[in-house]
Amino acid sequence: MINVAIMGHGVVGSGVAEILINHNARINERVNNEVNVKYILDLREFKGLSYSDKFIKDFNIILNDPEVKIVAEVMGGLEPAYDFVKALLLSGKSVVTSNKELVAAKGAELIKIAKEKNVNFLFEASVGGGIPVLRPLVQCLAANEVTEISGILNGTTNFILNKMIVDNMDFDAALKLAQDKGYAEKNPAADIEGHDACRKICILAALAFGKHVYPEQVETKGITDISLDDISAADSFGYVVKLIGHAKKNNNGKISAFVKPVLVSRECILSNVNGVFNAVMVTGDQTGEVVFYGKGAGKEATASAVVADIMDCVKHIDARKYLFWEDGDELYVEKDNSKSKFLVRIKSDDFSSLSDKFINIFGNDKDFIKNEFSKEISFITEEDLQENINKKLAAFENCEIKVLNILF
Amino acid sequence: MINVAIMGHGVVGSGVAEILINHNARINERVNNEVNVKYILDLREFKGLSYSDKFIKDFNIILNDPEVKIVAEVMGGLEPAYDFVKALLLSGKSVVTSNKELVAAKGAELIKIAKEKNVNFLFEASVGGGIPVLRPLVQCLAANEVTEISGILNGTTNFILNKMIVDNMDFDAALKLAQDKGYAEKNPAADIEGHDACRKICILAALAFGKHVYPEQVETKGITDISLDDISAADSFGYVVKLIGHAKKNNNGKISAFVKPVLVSRECILSNVNGVFNAVMVTGDQTGEVVFYGKGAGKEATASAVVADIMDCVKHIDARKYLFWEDGDELYVEKDNSKSKFLVRIKSDDFSSLSDKFINIFGNDKDFIKNEFSKEISFITEEDLQENINKKLAAFENCEIKVLNILF
Repeated sequence: MINVAIMGHGVVGSGVAEILINHNARINERVNNEVNVKYILDLREFKGLSYSDKFIKDFNIILNDPEVKIVAEVMGGLEPAYDFVKALLLSGKSVVTSNKELVAAKGAELIKIAKEKNVNFLFEASVGGGIPVLRPLVQCLAANEVTEISGILNGTTNFILNKMIVDNMDFDAALKLAQDKGYAEKNPAADIEGHDACRKICILAALAFGKHVYPEQVETKGITDISLDDISAADSFGYVVKLIGHAKKNNNGKISAFVKPVLVSRECILSNVNGVFNAVMVTGDQTGEVVFYGKGAGKEATASAVVADIMDCVKHIDARKYLFWEDGDELYVEKDNSKSKFLVRIKSDDFSSLSDKFINIFGNDKDFIKNEFSKEISFITEEDLQENINKKLAAFENCEIKVLNILF
Repeated sequence: MINVAIMGHGVVGSGVAEILINHNARINERVNNEVNVKYILDLREFKGLSYSDKFIKDFNIILNDPEVKIVAEVMGGLEPAYDFVKALLLSGKSVVTSNKELVAAKGAELIKIAKEKNVNFLFEASVGGGIPVLRPLVQCLAANEVTEISGILNGTTNFILNKMIVDNMDFDAALKLAQDKGYAEKNPAADIEGHDACRKICILAALAFGKHVYPEQVETKGITDISLDDISAADSFGYVVKLIGHAKKNNNGKISAFVKPVLVSRECILSNVNGVFNAVMVTGDQTGEVVFYGKGAGKEATASAVVADIMDCVKHIDARKYLFWEDGDELYVEKDNSKSKFLVRIKSDDFSSLSDKFINIFGNDKDFIKNEFSKEISFITEEDLQENINKKLAAFENCEIKVLNILF
């Protein structure tokens, strides 16, 4: 018998408890062992559950019980999760977690401890919820050099953008709807400002490229200033706006990474990732592009990924260490300097002189949309560096200018 | 040092040799061991390669060399691959293969031998080429009960259908183009008649549901009678035609499986899988739908999946046995009896009496497209059993009738 403790009985934690307890026979059969939930740590009271007797409030009971071999950390947040997980690993217990904040901030350190102690530290659920992505990235693409990763990593913002695109709903209304449906928190900052996606691209980049990328090293921009006009201009040229987390390995061995709203062509499969779904696109030098798609959040999906990690620990209780990366450093991440196309929108009250200037600078042969009513010109640039585009756009003084990167 | 033999130096085999030899340093570092290609078995001559000295023509050299621990079978076809693989496993060597015909026909037997001999038998490359799907299905979705699998499993037919949809090219011209591009064989039967997709859905169903499904148990229909008129009628109602391999677990514990051209809504992510790409959609009871997408064939993609399996064997040379299913039986697979919607096209020279009869049987309130020029009525039925639809359609004597299943 393997005793397991669950730390946290929120959305994900209660899901983990329910799967482990309600589907116990299925799980035991598959791991060829008996998995027993011994403790659930939560400061709140949960009465009337079939497993109410398992709740404890003191972390030290778990830490000091030699019978507990595997702990699921599903509390979220950096503290006290970090102290707890570190202490557990140091004491020789395996830990699985869905906590992206923890892994993005402290992954390299915790992996190192797990390795030294010969225990497992697994975190499939921390990226993409129920979508299998970390394990396939390491195991199945083992023969590849991964060159690039791009993902729709946050379901809340994807839901909001989708509502703006499909239902022409403005940002505030779409956010409100997401909150009403329980997809967005009351304080939605972590989602809509891109921090959640940033943590996930850090974890993906670390696994794919072998060194920790810290969230503060990643240029991060959310979707709060995306307007229906942006959406509609993108649509006119065959694109949709998506919040993409992106990381790539440059020729000098360094990494560039960003999270920002970009344009994705309707031809690209990522353009069809709708609602709260997530997708991760990995480019390998041998296999080309592969995409993993599914529910990036939600109780059952995330909990099932945590339970799959627990099952993996049970089957390999004497440790495996295939998830590994080194600590990062300041110089490892550099500004993205790729050429790309851009959608540019220029608006001016003096529309006739705007038109003249536009043709003067960008030429008349270019495909562009001239909207006299909204006094705006929108067009797609040639492939170029952003700084060169900015230089050309500097000529348009006193104009409202919006520039969005085209990624695919 | 681990010695490896490669059986077959065709498209995939040469790719495996090239990755193992050209990227040897990367691979050795990742598996923390030295991987050496000792033999390549092929009856043909390959002179002038950097590794021409490794070629042999006698299988027994591999079988009887105790230094060879892992063999990649990339010859394809059932014979002699089956005899070779069986002998190798019985002699205690691990085998990895990309051979879907072999796994679909003999998987249960070979897995059983591998288990008894405590060696690995891995075949990630046999489904979806370079797309990680078998391993994630077993490991990452371990906490799920898989209820349904649907996939675009054959790149050749997807390329042909895509050309018909996007470029309005007829079937023969699209097939010719696929042949010219090297996507289709001179004898394209295995692809266009659905047999290739059938083998893959058998493997997926076996892994997901735990018992062998044999190709001859699966209702299999190719794309040869899909016309541009079908494509265009589907388009009118917001659908595309895709060749889908499908398997699901019924409430009585039995399996239904088919390969056939069906309609997929443009809202569904599978509708956006274009060209030679493949995608596998797996539905789990906890995690909902997850999709794995990428290149389903091609030298580098498939070879990299074979090499990843070799690397997994090296890391677990003392065996793992997570890919497992039992032998199947005659009663295990039953006819699919789900309700679904259908696209129906009815054509008659006597168009006015066809119209009258249609309204009489299906009602006037139904959305339908009446084309007096082509003397055809097309419409989408309510959700129903196919046999009930057929009963209603029996009234349309002397008409040309075409019925296509709507899956998503």
